[in-house]
Amino acid sequence: MAGHLHNSEAFNYGVETWEAYKRGCLSKDLVEEQKKVQEADLLIFQFPLFWFNMPAILKGWMDRVLVRGFAYDLSKVYDGGLLQDKLSLFSFTTGGSKEKYSIRDDIRYLLWPMQHGIMHFCGVKVLEPHICYAPENVSEEKRKEMLAAWTQRLKTLWKEEPINCSPEWYFK
Amino acid sequence: MAGHLHNSEAFNYGVETWEAYKRGCLSKDLVEEQKKVQEADLLIFQFPLFWFNMPAILKGWMDRVLVRGFAYDLSKVYDGGLLQDKLSLFSFTTGGSKEKYSIRDDIRYLLWPMQHGIMHFCGVKVLEPHICYAPENVSEEKRKEMLAAWTQRLKTLWKEEPINCSPEWYFK
Repeated sequence: MAGHLHNSEAFNYGVETWEAYKRGCLSKDLVEEQKKVQEADLLIFQFPLFWFNMPAILKGWMDRVLVRGFAYDLSKVYDGGLLQDKLSLFSFTTGGSKEKYSIRDDIRYLLWPMQHGIMHFCGVKVLEPHICYAPENVSEEKRKEMLAAWTQRLKTLWKEEPINCSPEWYFK
Repeated sequence: MAGHLHNSEAFNYGVETWEAYKRGCLSKDLVEEQKKVQEADLLIFQFPLFWFNMPAILKGWMDRVLVRGFAYDLSKVYDGGLLQDKLSLFSFTTGGSKEKYSIRDDIRYLLWPMQHGIMHFCGVKVLEPHICYAPENVSEEKRKEMLAAWTQRLKTLWKEEPINCSPEWYFK
């Protein structure tokens, strides 16, 4: 953020970034990121799963870039969010094997805050996540298969239907 | 991390921090944070909820401090995690009102990655979260009540039983 604070008496991060967005005073790097988002039809987030979640640096991108006024606004949330007509896809690698996740933890549980709480909140539709389980612990051949499967999926991504981003998809 | 990489051919963040921990080569700030964790009986994480989650900077603390060898190890996870005999408590403020969360989103859903995926994974027991809903949108009087309730809770915290950190607590 560049320039004066909107309210220097009581600092409120959400209000300050919202005001800065409206006045065109957001930091240049944020404006550039927002431009990329604006122009994109599909947002692919590729990352290693850290602690059931995005790595901090990617969470920081969400915290900084998806500013009120740009991504959502008062009552313009979820299906009414400001980033409608866009698709998103969370593509990530895990440390644990698929078996580990299916025995104790349904991997869908941890997708709720990211897919529903962020993307759906901003009106962005969500495609099925793409998950490569434990690439560091599988054979080179298996890793090549993973890459081939991802390449294959990318070819027909535009034909996919978004998931129904409701509690049922995550918890039933 | 200070000193040489364990494997400079194929960089693996998890392996490098684990090796650095074993060799005593973690960055000084991390060692200090780990010392605090080691000495604590109770970890209270106080933060504003950003995007259904911790702010990035707190997630970064988790990513950097809770290193393999220190917080967990191969098959030393969940009830067998390395930080047993400790309690944790997630205390946070929200932007949205309690009604908003109870209509559309059960707030417990978003606690799964933090409480189960991080604390429980490391063997840390979890107390009921402490949530102040939308403090910026309520009256000064209501805010004072929130603080008083927190003060009150802190007095008897040691008598509380941890939650049963299983899918039932979160999703039933």
